[in-house]
Amino acid sequence: MKGFAELTNVDVVREKFFNLIDKPKFQRKEKVPLMQSIWRVLAEDIVSQVNIPPFDRAAMDGYAVKAENTFGASTTSPIQLKIVGAVDIGDTPTVTVHDGEAVRINTGAPMPPGANAVVMAEYTEKISENILEIYQTVTPNKNLAKAGEDVKKGDVVAKKGTIICPQDIALFHALGIEEVTVWQKLKVAVFSTGDELVEEYNNLSPAKIVDSNRPLLKFMLQRDGAEFLDMGIVPDDKDELKKTLLKAIEQADIIVTSGGTSVGTKDYLPLLVSELGSPGIVIHGVNITPGRPVALGKIKEKPLIILPGYPVAAFLNYNLFVRPLIHYLMDSSYRWQPYEKITAKMATRISSRPGVREFVRVKLEITKDNEVLVHPIRRRGAGILSSVTKADALLVIPEDSEGYDDGEEVIVELLRYK
Amino acid sequence: MKGFAELTNVDVVREKFFNLIDKPKFQRKEKVPLMQSIWRVLAEDIVSQVNIPPFDRAAMDGYAVKAENTFGASTTSPIQLKIVGAVDIGDTPTVTVHDGEAVRINTGAPMPPGANAVVMAEYTEKISENILEIYQTVTPNKNLAKAGEDVKKGDVVAKKGTIICPQDIALFHALGIEEVTVWQKLKVAVFSTGDELVEEYNNLSPAKIVDSNRPLLKFMLQRDGAEFLDMGIVPDDKDELKKTLLKAIEQADIIVTSGGTSVGTKDYLPLLVSELGSPGIVIHGVNITPGRPVALGKIKEKPLIILPGYPVAAFLNYNLFVRPLIHYLMDSSYRWQPYEKITAKMATRISSRPGVREFVRVKLEITKDNEVLVHPIRRRGAGILSSVTKADALLVIPEDSEGYDDGEEVIVELLRYK
Repeated sequence: MKGFAELTNVDVVREKFFNLIDKPKFQRKEKVPLMQSIWRVLAEDIVSQVNIPPFDRAAMDGYAVKAENTFGASTTSPIQLKIVGAVDIGDTPTVTVHDGEAVRINTGAPMPPGANAVVMAEYTEKISENILEIYQTVTPNKNLAKAGEDVKKGDVVAKKGTIICPQDIALFHALGIEEVTVWQKLKVAVFSTGDELVEEYNNLSPAKIVDSNRPLLKFMLQRDGAEFLDMGIVPDDKDELKKTLLKAIEQADIIVTSGGTSVGTKDYLPLLVSELGSPGIVIHGVNITPGRPVALGKIKEKPLIILPGYPVAAFLNYNLFVRPLIHYLMDSSYRWQPYEKITAKMATRISSRPGVREFVRVKLEITKDNEVLVHPIRRRGAGILSSVTKADALLVIPEDSEGYDDGEEVIVELLRYK
Repeated sequence: MKGFAELTNVDVVREKFFNLIDKPKFQRKEKVPLMQSIWRVLAEDIVSQVNIPPFDRAAMDGYAVKAENTFGASTTSPIQLKIVGAVDIGDTPTVTVHDGEAVRINTGAPMPPGANAVVMAEYTEKISENILEIYQTVTPNKNLAKAGEDVKKGDVVAKKGTIICPQDIALFHALGIEEVTVWQKLKVAVFSTGDELVEEYNNLSPAKIVDSNRPLLKFMLQRDGAEFLDMGIVPDDKDELKKTLLKAIEQADIIVTSGGTSVGTKDYLPLLVSELGSPGIVIHGVNITPGRPVALGKIKEKPLIILPGYPVAAFLNYNLFVRPLIHYLMDSSYRWQPYEKITAKMATRISSRPGVREFVRVKLEITKDNEVLVHPIRRRGAGILSSVTKADALLVIPEDSEGYDDGEEVIVELLRYK
């Protein structure tokens, strides 16, 4: 067989590709206002300068007391205390609790001086205007939140690499943090190559097709926290390709192209890249199906990924190389990110050729017993974009597997994530 | 015990709550340009008006032939054909293939008239300027993509309720769709109640705390596709509360408040709601920990959710009631959305009181064997916001469970999703 000289396992390829790259060069800090930092990646640890809560406060509605005064109290043997005041939420306590005294308090209100525990309202009864009976013994610190219980001054509340989620913004805001240092977004230049491509359906003429890869890549890149630089459609012309490539290298951190990776007569791009500088294309062809003819390399210190032109192949290779690259360069907390993996059960038998990693598009069915069944819908056809939009998930059949039996438990990767 | 009269199971509660709501009233259509429709929810099926591909095209690089002319060809018994031309990607074929002829063709190029299959380049050899030897028999339609193979005119390519993902935009764009009909975003009015709350850390005075729930809710609502209407902090004052509540009902589809749900002396809000109209608060108190004192109801046809003031309790109840409500009202393809569930293994034993659904914040550890281990970090303390930011996931212990053994397989819900 002519064609691709060597096809390499995808995990080996990814490691080899990432090892080409001088990561620190891509990590540039910037400060952004906290309220604009959602989904960005922290470039520094966040260390609290304050205690939360800033003061001891009641964790239940009830009465603030000296715990020692309650010892022995029970339903059958109540203890009486004198009610000497009340503290409500937001109030600064003006009264001190002495032996034999209690102060009415609401959840979240600051503890009055002298008190060290709260008796829940449920275990008390007011028997007159200012006499309280309590029916429960409480230990010191019972039913209260100590100052600094949530966060202590000096605590690292979030580590470098954290993707900032809503709960992080809430906490940072509570700590008085108004600005955070994040990694600048990576700029990814994207162009499509091919004389057959047109921008819009309305411009279609015979033998032409609409370029759907740039919109696909745009929204995937934006979802994954990168900036999309649109370099348009480039015809199969060596000079045009060279011009666009040089512009992309100058303006972007990463270059992603689609099309022009096969062994057809006009596939100048991999050649051109290797001409422009060392090491150029390092990997050409990966052991997966569909999506084999991806090319990966480095040009003037910038990582370059030439995706196959067919949209399904572009989609799969994006998920295998581009998305992980972005998270690798940002050291981001990607570890838990592939949420999309769930356990399911084959609804039918499927066999696969060993030696290649196969990506099968599948529909999922939830049975009445809440089992998830996997129905393969499409195996071949890197050009069939609708197979990706119709699929709920991908079933990955590894290189060393001959497939799965009907009823076998498998892990599938959900496709419709945000 | 005084306090909440009835605590109801969370699934029962959710169903009861959703059943209060007249869903169609919340489904308003709007047209948006395709390129602005990412993550919106389709309000109508998308039906293709065209075929993709629009013409038969080569699926491999090689030669377009009449399949019948290749019958019997093999490595040991090649068949010779005359090369009569070439068709490249983007070219309109100008040559017709007759018996005994072949046309050079690249992947994606339109098939020339007369040809019905492609012989891959790998199985051919050009033995002179225009004589080709082929070493493989191909059947009709081999190595080509038929017109409409991806999408046929009239196909439903996406159903009402689909959350529009990058792959959908790519397909719709390829079909010439420039505008899609989506549901208008639901408007959610949010306010926090409590005399102890201040807007910013810099305004803190003794006994006050920063309102972290509104930023939390803002970014969760925006992530979940709703519009956040900020109604600010409202003090524990009946007139102020009433004014804000009426304004929220007028401007929003859903009202979400936090604070003021407990049985403390100033908790006017549930009372006020029930005064304002029927049915008012329908559920007060759910059988979960932490987060018990949530209140759910309907006021002037608008769903209302009063979240507990403590941030962890607000966070949990948001995920249990607000997020599902948004997806319920939009009929959105939420079915596969809780990506965040993964299977893991307890690193330690944990016991739980039967009869209550407990939410334990946990750290996850990946072992060298790629096992995911669950380490509980916090069980109580609805006020401990840092327990949510430190946690990778939630372990849910159902009402009928007494806990899990060391090494037992459990499902955890990842918290850091987008």
